[in-house]
Amino acid sequence: MINIVFHGQNASNYLDTFREALQHPATITRLPDTLENPADIAAFANAEVIVGNHFNKHLPRPARLGLFQSCATGIDRIDLAALPRSVAVCNCYGHGEAMAEFVMAAMLSKRVPLADADAKLRQGVWRYRSGDLDALHGEVCQTTLGLLGYGHIAQAIAERAKPFSMRVLAANRSEVAVSACVDAWHGLDDLDDFYRKCDFIVVSLPLTDRTQGMVDARAFSLMRPQAVIINVGRGPVIEEQALYDALLRKAIGGAVIDTWYRYPAHASDTGRPASLPFEKLDNVLMTPHMSAWTDGTIRRRGQAMAANVDAYCEGRPLAHEVRPSASQG
Amino acid sequence: MINIVFHGQNASNYLDTFREALQHPATITRLPDTLENPADIAAFANAEVIVGNHFNKHLPRPARLGLFQSCATGIDRIDLAALPRSVAVCNCYGHGEAMAEFVMAAMLSKRVPLADADAKLRQGVWRYRSGDLDALHGEVCQTTLGLLGYGHIAQAIAERAKPFSMRVLAANRSEVAVSACVDAWHGLDDLDDFYRKCDFIVVSLPLTDRTQGMVDARAFSLMRPQAVIINVGRGPVIEEQALYDALLRKAIGGAVIDTWYRYPAHASDTGRPASLPFEKLDNVLMTPHMSAWTDGTIRRRGQAMAANVDAYCEGRPLAHEVRPSASQG
Repeated sequence: MINIVFHGQNASNYLDTFREALQHPATITRLPDTLENPADIAAFANAEVIVGNHFNKHLPRPARLGLFQSCATGIDRIDLAALPRSVAVCNCYGHGEAMAEFVMAAMLSKRVPLADADAKLRQGVWRYRSGDLDALHGEVCQTTLGLLGYGHIAQAIAERAKPFSMRVLAANRSEVAVSACVDAWHGLDDLDDFYRKCDFIVVSLPLTDRTQGMVDARAFSLMRPQAVIINVGRGPVIEEQALYDALLRKAIGGAVIDTWYRYPAHASDTGRPASLPFEKLDNVLMTPHMSAWTDGTIRRRGQAMAANVDAYCEGRPLAHEVRPSASQG
Repeated sequence: MINIVFHGQNASNYLDTFREALQHPATITRLPDTLENPADIAAFANAEVIVGNHFNKHLPRPARLGLFQSCATGIDRIDLAALPRSVAVCNCYGHGEAMAEFVMAAMLSKRVPLADADAKLRQGVWRYRSGDLDALHGEVCQTTLGLLGYGHIAQAIAERAKPFSMRVLAANRSEVAVSACVDAWHGLDDLDDFYRKCDFIVVSLPLTDRTQGMVDARAFSLMRPQAVIINVGRGPVIEEQALYDALLRKAIGGAVIDTWYRYPAHASDTGRPASLPFEKLDNVLMTPHMSAWTDGTIRRRGQAMAANVDAYCEGRPLAHEVRPSASQG
C-alpha cells in the first residue's frame, strides 16, 4: 500500500478517474488546499505521492515523499527548491485534444453559419440554400492557418487542420521541420510575412516577458482583412487595446478569445474579462477560458497520473518529469 | 475555337471559375433555362459542349454535340435516351469537402458550446470556465461516428473525423474494407447493432425505394440517448414522424437536419420545411439544404469541368463519365 495524497480542489477533479485507473494498492487521502486540521497535516506529512498543483515551504514537509505529480502542465506554483532533491516532479498533459477541438469548432463556426441558418429557417427563410451565388458560405479548405507557438497544443491543432486541406504555418522560436502537418516555419523574430499570409491565427504561446504584448497594433496592421485571431494561450500575449481597436475598426475578420485580461477570483464569480468593452463588439466570440476543460481532459489526466504512479511504485521510468529525483540521477 | 453552351441558372453559377480555368480557346454562350429567343435556340443547337443539369427531347437537338457536362452529381434530369449515342455524358463532384466541413462543424457544435458560452460571458457569467467538474463540456474524441451510406461524401467526413480519434463505422450496401478511416463495416440489411453503437449518425444515402423511410421509429428506439442524427442526404430517408417523435420525447440527443420534406419552389421563397412543427423543438438544428453550397464547391466544380472540357478538346480520357460516347467504346 502506498500513501497518496490528493491536495486541493483542482487535484480532486481527477480523483475518480485516477482511482479507477490505478493498478497499485494504495491509500488515497483527499485534502483541502489549506491544511488546518491536525489529521490533514499529518496525512500530508506522511504522503509518499502528492497529486496537486502547488507546493511551498509553508506546507508541512513530506519526509517520505518520492513523487510530486502535478495535475496541471504549468508548475509555476510548485516551489521546486522547497521539495527535497530526492523527490521526482512530473507534470501532466491530456488537454491538447480538447483545445484542438475548441479551435477547430471555432474556425469552422466562422465559415459554416449554422446558428444563423437555423434562426432563419425556423422563420421559414431559406437563407444559404443551394442555388444562388449570393447565398454561398465559406470553407476552411485552402485557407492558411498560422500557429503562433508550436507546442503540443498547436501540434494537436495541426494534425486536425491538415485533413481539411488547410495550409499550416508554424511560428515558433525554435525551428519546426516541414512535415505532413506543417507547410512552413517562421521564426518569432520577424513575423511580418506570417501575419500577412494567415486567414486564421491561433495563439498558444505561454506568457513571458518576451511574449507579453507580442501581437500588437503593428501586427494587426499587417493581417488580412478577413483574418480571424484565436487566443487559447494567455490573454496578454495579445495587446488588449490593439485587439479592441482592430475589432472596432473591423480591420480584421474577427476574433475568438478564450484567455483574457481579467479573471474573477473564483469560477463561479461574475465579472468582465477585460477593461475594454469587448462585449459590445459583434465580431468577437467571447469564451471563459474553457478550451481545455472537457470530460476528456479529466479522463486522460486521471489515467495518465495513475499510470505514472503505477510506474513509480514499480520502479519504471516516469513520464513528463520536469525534475528527476537526485537518486535517479 | 470550340462552342460551349452554359445552359440554365444552375450552370451559370460556375461560369466565372470555368472561364478562368479553361485552357482551350472557346466561345462560351450563356443561355437561360427556357429557350424562346431564336438566337438562343440556334446557339443551343450549335453547341459542341453543353454544361447544364437537365436535358430532354423538347430542347433543340444539338447535332454537333460531343460532350454533355453535368454541373451536378445527380443526372436524374438528364434524359440520356434523348441524347445521341455519340455524346459523352459526365457528371461533377467537388462538394464532398464542403459537406464534410458542414458535418464536422455540426458535430463539434454539439460538444463545444461556443454560442452559449459567448452569450453568458457577455453578461459577465463565466459558465464552462476551467475549474469545477460541473462546468465541463464534451468532446468528439473517443465517440463513435456512424456513416449511413459510404460514398464520396462519407469518405470525406471519415478522413476528417479520424484525426479527432473518433471511431468510424460505415453502413453501406456493399462491403467497406477496414482502413485508416474505417473501423468496421455494417451491411444495410441489419443495422440494429450499428444504431446501438453510434454517438453520431450521418445520413448521406440517396433517396430510392429502398432507402425511403429507412430510419424509422424502430431505428430511433435502438439509438443511444445521447445520439445525434445528422441528415445531409435526402430528407425522406428519415421518416418524418419518427424523427419528430424521437426529438419531442428527447429519446435521442438531438438532430441536425439539412435536407427536408418540403421545399419552396425557389431559393428565395419562404416556407416551412416539413409538415410537422420542427421549428418548435429546441433539440434540432435546422439548416436549409446548404451543406454543399460553398465558394469552394463553386471553385472546384468550375475547375473540374474546365479540365474535363480541355481533356475532351485534346482527345484525352474524361473524368466521371456516366455514359461514354458510343464512338469511345
